[in-house]
Amino acid sequence: MKKLLILLSLVCGMIFMINAQQDKIRVIVIGAHPDDCDGDAGGTAILWAKMGHAVKFVSVTNGDAGHQEMGGGALAKRRMAEAMEAGRRFGVEYEVLDNHDGELVPDLKVRKEIIKLIREWKADVVITHRPNDYHPDHRYTAMLVQDAAYMVIVPNIVPETPPLSTNPVFLYTQDNFQKPNPFHPDIAVAIDDVIDQKIYAMAAHESQFFEWLPWTAGILDKVPKDDKSRLDFIAQRYRGGVSDNIKETLVKWYGDKKGSQVKYAEAFEICEFGRRPDEKEILRLFPMLEVK
Amino acid sequence: MKKLLILLSLVCGMIFMINAQQDKIRVIVIGAHPDDCDGDAGGTAILWAKMGHAVKFVSVTNGDAGHQEMGGGALAKRRMAEAMEAGRRFGVEYEVLDNHDGELVPDLKVRKEIIKLIREWKADVVITHRPNDYHPDHRYTAMLVQDAAYMVIVPNIVPETPPLSTNPVFLYTQDNFQKPNPFHPDIAVAIDDVIDQKIYAMAAHESQFFEWLPWTAGILDKVPKDDKSRLDFIAQRYRGGVSDNIKETLVKWYGDKKGSQVKYAEAFEICEFGRRPDEKEILRLFPMLEVK
Amino acid sequence: MKKLLILLSLVCGMIFMINAQQDKIRVIVIGAHPDDCDGDAGGTAILWAKMGHAVKFVSVTNGDAGHQEMGGGALAKRRMAEAMEAGRRFGVEYEVLDNHDGELVPDLKVRKEIIKLIREWKADVVITHRPNDYHPDHRYTAMLVQDAAYMVIVPNIVPETPPLSTNPVFLYTQDNFQKPNPFHPDIAVAIDDVIDQKIYAMAAHESQFFEWLPWTAGILDKVPKDDKSRLDFIAQRYRGGVSDNIKETLVKWYGDKKGSQVKYAEAFEICEFGRRPDEKEILRLFPMLEVK
Amino acid sequence: MKKLLILLSLVCGMIFMINAQQDKIRVIVIGAHPDDCDGDAGGTAILWAKMGHAVKFVSVTNGDAGHQEMGGGALAKRRMAEAMEAGRRFGVEYEVLDNHDGELVPDLKVRKEIIKLIREWKADVVITHRPNDYHPDHRYTAMLVQDAAYMVIVPNIVPETPPLSTNPVFLYTQDNFQKPNPFHPDIAVAIDDVIDQKIYAMAAHESQFFEWLPWTAGILDKVPKDDKSRLDFIAQRYRGGVSDNIKETLVKWYGDKKGSQVKYAEAFEICEFGRRPDEKEILRLFPMLEVK
Amino acid sequence: MKKLLILLSLVCGMIFMINAQQDKIRVIVIGAHPDDCDGDAGGTAILWAKMGHAVKFVSVTNGDAGHQEMGGGALAKRRMAEAMEAGRRFGVEYEVLDNHDGELVPDLKVRKEIIKLIREWKADVVITHRPNDYHPDHRYTAMLVQDAAYMVIVPNIVPETPPLSTNPVFLYTQDNFQKPNPFHPDIAVAIDDVIDQKIYAMAAHESQFFEWLPWTAGILDKVPKDDKSRLDFIAQRYRGGVSDNIKETLVKWYGDKKGSQVKYAEAFEICEFGRRPDEKEILRLFPMLEVK
Amino acid sequence: MKKLLILLSLVCGMIFMINAQQDKIRVIVIGAHPDDCDGDAGGTAILWAKMGHAVKFVSVTNGDAGHQEMGGGALAKRRMAEAMEAGRRFGVEYEVLDNHDGELVPDLKVRKEIIKLIREWKADVVITHRPNDYHPDHRYTAMLVQDAAYMVIVPNIVPETPPLSTNPVFLYTQDNFQKPNPFHPDIAVAIDDVIDQKIYAMAAHESQFFEWLPWTAGILDKVPKDDKSRLDFIAQRYRGGVSDNIKETLVKWYGDKKGSQVKYAEAFEICEFGRRPDEKEILRLFPMLEVK
Repeated sequence: MKKLLILLSLVCGMIFMINAQQDKIRVIVIGAHPDDCDGDAGGTAILWAKMGHAVKFVSVTNGDAGHQEMGGGALAKRRMAEAMEAGRRFGVEYEVLDNHDGELVPDLKVRKEIIKLIREWKADVVITHRPNDYHPDHRYTAMLVQDAAYMVIVPNIVPETPPLSTNPVFLYTQDNFQKPNPFHPDIAVAIDDVIDQKIYAMAAHESQFFEWLPWTAGILDKVPKDDKSRLDFIAQRYRGGVSDNIKETLVKWYGDKKGSQVKYAEAFEICEFGRRPDEKEILRLFPMLEVK
Repeated sequence: MKKLLILLSLVCGMIFMINAQQDKIRVIVIGAHPDDCDGDAGGTAILWAKMGHAVKFVSVTNGDAGHQEMGGGALAKRRMAEAMEAGRRFGVEYEVLDNHDGELVPDLKVRKEIIKLIREWKADVVITHRPNDYHPDHRYTAMLVQDAAYMVIVPNIVPETPPLSTNPVFLYTQDNFQKPNPFHPDIAVAIDDVIDQKIYAMAAHESQFFEWLPWTAGILDKVPKDDKSRLDFIAQRYRGGVSDNIKETLVKWYGDKKGSQVKYAEAFEICEFGRRPDEKEILRLFPMLEVK
Repeated sequence: MKKLLILLSLVCGMIFMINAQQDKIRVIVIGAHPDDCDGDAGGTAILWAKMGHAVKFVSVTNGDAGHQEMGGGALAKRRMAEAMEAGRRFGVEYEVLDNHDGELVPDLKVRKEIIKLIREWKADVVITHRPNDYHPDHRYTAMLVQDAAYMVIVPNIVPETPPLSTNPVFLYTQDNFQKPNPFHPDIAVAIDDVIDQKIYAMAAHESQFFEWLPWTAGILDKVPKDDKSRLDFIAQRYRGGVSDNIKETLVKWYGDKKGSQVKYAEAFEICEFGRRPDEKEILRLFPMLEVK
Repeated sequence: MKKLLILLSLVCGMIFMINAQQDKIRVIVIGAHPDDCDGDAGGTAILWAKMGHAVKFVSVTNGDAGHQEMGGGALAKRRMAEAMEAGRRFGVEYEVLDNHDGELVPDLKVRKEIIKLIREWKADVVITHRPNDYHPDHRYTAMLVQDAAYMVIVPNIVPETPPLSTNPVFLYTQDNFQKPNPFHPDIAVAIDDVIDQKIYAMAAHESQFFEWLPWTAGILDKVPKDDKSRLDFIAQRYRGGVSDNIKETLVKWYGDKKGSQVKYAEAFEICEFGRRPDEKEILRLFPMLEVK
Repeated sequence: MKKLLILLSLVCGMIFMINAQQDKIRVIVIGAHPDDCDGDAGGTAILWAKMGHAVKFVSVTNGDAGHQEMGGGALAKRRMAEAMEAGRRFGVEYEVLDNHDGELVPDLKVRKEIIKLIREWKADVVITHRPNDYHPDHRYTAMLVQDAAYMVIVPNIVPETPPLSTNPVFLYTQDNFQKPNPFHPDIAVAIDDVIDQKIYAMAAHESQFFEWLPWTAGILDKVPKDDKSRLDFIAQRYRGGVSDNIKETLVKWYGDKKGSQVKYAEAFEICEFGRRPDEKEILRLFPMLEVK
Repeated sequence: MKKLLILLSLVCGMIFMINAQQDKIRVIVIGAHPDDCDGDAGGTAILWAKMGHAVKFVSVTNGDAGHQEMGGGALAKRRMAEAMEAGRRFGVEYEVLDNHDGELVPDLKVRKEIIKLIREWKADVVITHRPNDYHPDHRYTAMLVQDAAYMVIVPNIVPETPPLSTNPVFLYTQDNFQKPNPFHPDIAVAIDDVIDQKIYAMAAHESQFFEWLPWTAGILDKVPKDDKSRLDFIAQRYRGGVSDNIKETLVKWYGDKKGSQVKYAEAFEICEFGRRPDEKEILRLFPMLEVK
């Protein structure tokens, strides 16, 4: 009898979820490597997820080059497992595509994979890298997502997957590169409330934050052993702060008082190739923003 | 309460099916277009399916060039629907990949898609075209499947999808081309018992059997309108007969008496690049063969 | 006898035309889809054509994805016919290349096709999209034309087609994208006198202006049925106006009085990779500009 | 008046030619380099041309690697001129495609070029290399032509060029390679009557027969200077003889007496991927064959 | 003073070697993976090397997929080290190209690398796989080497590296595949005298013979630990025997008596696309053959 | 005895050089064509070389299209010889890659070649074109070098060649293109002292400076015959001057007095994708700069 009740509740739950989906904001974050989405948009993702919205992280490469000692399929499998764990910690779905790390090229095949993913997720918002960035995989991921924009509404492209009825809002994540244009923070989200959860979720990528990235920085011997210190280690290096222009944007969206007190934030720039949201739509898509 | 019982039975059914799967023979047929698997191995597929085994048809292209009046995504969607209906009639799963019809190239991306499909289906048997055939898509489909053979057991390739533990048996379907070698019927399956079902299932590809193929043959005006006559129309043209060397193979597997009376058959040649089954294994994989 | 006279006049006409060609300005407009050249440079093309100059429109893709119901070769043929009709209405030659719509990649083969077309047309002016634009086909068309610039004068490239003796002037058409740079109107042409002809010529692309584009905009039910209203429908949506910076440019080229009264204009930005014309050469190439 | 008469006769001539075209056999020979068609099918081409039929030679590469001292565009232009002269001497049209010699790859772009050429020529017969041959360009030319077979009748492929209503007869030219199969002479044409014209026409490829090929054979110093001796030089090396199996085929088509006396012949093998002509159709397509 | 003498002797040695090179037979073996050349031609290579001739092994891929636990760059580096050690044991030079294992495609870039390697080695003999074989990398390696044949003498291809003056003899190594043709042993070399050295040299590929290949065969637990038993383990599995048709070839080259007693042999088939050696040349190139 | 002494001194020299290499600055300049590095960074290269530092010039294409009369391999060989001579005159190593001029595409293969070259040279500084420039080969060379930046430190990429321990400083050479950004002279080097040597070294590219480039400029008849005048001819056209913003940079690095008197200079912009050097590091890498 108990099992029947469980089944019943599952069924009801499903029905409830289906209804609830009507109002869900659906977000897909597309990064080059398993861990890119996490650092760039992980805090905002947690906030969306906590409010019941649907977030998916996609890594366009399988990360099979990101280590000083491992490589290939062996590394790809480890990173896949890390990504699954990170997804659980963030409260999002995580998918890793089978493209070699460090060898991504913006070809039609990957473009179509991305079109399909955006459509299947019925995305309202698509977030990715800017097309200028130090890592070629980041640049080509951005180019692929740009090349998917608009195409997601064209029925003759990837015809087996129904097109979206409107072009989503496409957003770029923050970076520090100045040419040809510096990043412009159209939207900034305060993540103070979830910064610890973000750091904890990022820590799932052990091969990256405790091995590969410290190795490239020459500080592999500085990585602590115990869990608590390891979270601090990530926090110190990747928690980020709030630069002046981000603060300005925070004030715009949160009002003077709250905006100027934010310690940790994630910022986004609106890509010209997707739908251009007005302020009202931004507030609908980013319900964690508090109008001043 | 009734619904709960239905649910319960569904759950039990699933558990039962999971157990049953242990002994299932798992077959994947990989053709170039939506309708190629059907004519080449459809009868054998019905027999497997009726015995409870698992068969999947894959079309490597979406068939978007196979019509005299329609084309592109519009045609692809129509053919996808026809393939789904054909799958239901055959009792098999049907999947259509998003590659342009008439433009298939044997690149790494499609090879990896096929490796993934064979692995995910946990195939014991893989069936495809021979690499010499009049249609370039058939040739390149065969080449892609050949290129997937062996690779399906290599863990470092498509590392996110666990490899098979042994290379499946790879089989070619029958054709009439003589060079560089004629087709050799290592295995022949009598399909007399299911020939009507095969024809009916093929008829699901209306755009092909009643429009495009008659058009290329210059007999579009000969296509009947009513359902019954349409089935006869297909039967007459595609039911096939039994050539002398096929008869010889049938006699080998079914014995003199039954073998020599078979009217409709499908034959297969063993590809050298997969596992080489001995007679005993062939009988296990083709349980519809009746040892003399 | 009458026929002989007609023949004679044809022959004379041809001789006359050959002589006249010496002074003709030769313009090639290269857009991504059949209808892109039309909206972007159609008015200026009519003006050139009326003055006896030679204009050619090229669509780099065959437009086979631009419809909600049709696709593939069927759509490509319809759009080819529309393009031919549009060419007649504009008074220009129209050529459509056989590349899939929505799948253009900037490869060497298409680059060489474009080099050949520019050379064979003996172009003085080449007009195309800017490389930043919402549609990937537009971006890659621009990249392909940029990649052809300079190469059109190198004899070892596409050696069968004699090179041009000087690099043409390459121009970009107007768009509203701001990054990495906004469009800069170096040249603006008043098209008030031919705006009706432009709209009428654009209307030849029925599949686009009355079916596909309204469908993407969600206003398919607003498309009128009668010819007159259909022209108004296009005019309202695509006739364009004159922004402040375009007005500034118009005043530069037409003088204060005329320039400030222009209602419809097409503007062009000089690409740095072609020949850099001075004001005098611009006036020679754009004889419809009236010096103040 | 005289000019008018000339014009008139030209016009009549054209009308006559248009009518005559109805019964013309239309042949396209597709070789890898400018001079491949000539040696392989040049004699038969002369015979067709003399009977009023339409023959076109196509070189898929521009021959820009075939010389010991020249190369690139400079060589391509020389060979283009040689091909044009050879075409005049053979009485056929000659076209050279812009692909690098020694670097041909069987990609979709070249396949589509070939589909277009076969369709535009409205070919009844297509002749090319066998896919096994010492030169990679020969092999890939054969593969490209095979990949065009059947596709020439599919309207959705290269949709701007109307498809043929029936698949042409595809033929391979003779070579001496034994694996995987030796060449099989289904058809053999006696060219004794035109052997001198063939040699003279081949001699138009001066860069090849008097420079490059002798250089590769280490006999550059043996090449004579005067025209007469140069023709003998080619004749001795490339005139060919009649092997036993070719003689057998000649006897089949010309009867015992004539067939066994033939000194120079060209032979062809029927490709399985095109239309399979019966004896009657072969005689229609090869009207120079004299039934015994 | 001692050092000066050493230097002097080194210099003299070099001069001596340069002279000796005039008569050296120069052999390049091109396999798909680091270990393919070894098993296929390692014994013959040892014999050549012992006689003072120059042998080079090339692996076209870096072997980065050939392991059940490692992969990518980590594995590639291990296999590179193993190949270097194997080279020392065989007495040959070993080079590994940077192409992914399991992903080799026969593109122009790799073809040119191979042309360059054959030229730089000034090869008299080139040995590779047959183009039909169970592993796609083997097939595409064979295709690449075929595509390099003839091209190695064309100066305009890879123009920076001087061409060979004559096409080398190209040979295929033995396999058991029957279609489209079985392997034909034109040449067979008795390797009884060096079989132990061959096994020892192969054993340098520890990752393969003691880990990966046993794993794929399901006998990883059967691999012995001590060096002696490990050599026996390889010997038993890869030493090979002498089939009837190989014996026939051995008798041809070694005479009845010796030929029929050979226990271990390596056989080669002459590829039609290279120079066709007569018996005398074969004896010159294979000086270990003893004329009966 | 004398020879022994020479040998001895050579050996000692080598040992000395090996030690000296520890402190050598290692620079690699990567241009699109053989002569691009020369004009863009040749003066600075001479200064580095004179101070004992190690400079290498790489041409990514072989320059086989850069002539009005020659082409292909013939031209490539001539330009290779010119590059070797130029390298001698500059005092740098010169390497030319085997990619067609005018057909460079930014594919993975060339990217990996460049990664390998940068690593093997153990480069501290990498110099290339900006990605916006009139010539597609320049743009794609820049893109390839950008795509190599960062990857040079990743061990799993090009695993056979040990990675660099730190990302080099990547610099762009000067050009006049304004979009999307004008060139910004972060560093400017006075080359007055070596301008004559630079011109003399550039003159080694005879096919370019005295034939091709004058031909494209329409001044082939202005090219002088005697050596002295030819150097003047180059000097006048390519010596360059010092624009205002370059002067500003010169003053920054050389101080007011010396900086404002410089007549000839080469300027470099720091690429954001490599290591970002501070002023101190710039002075270490550019020891010819004299702090004010």
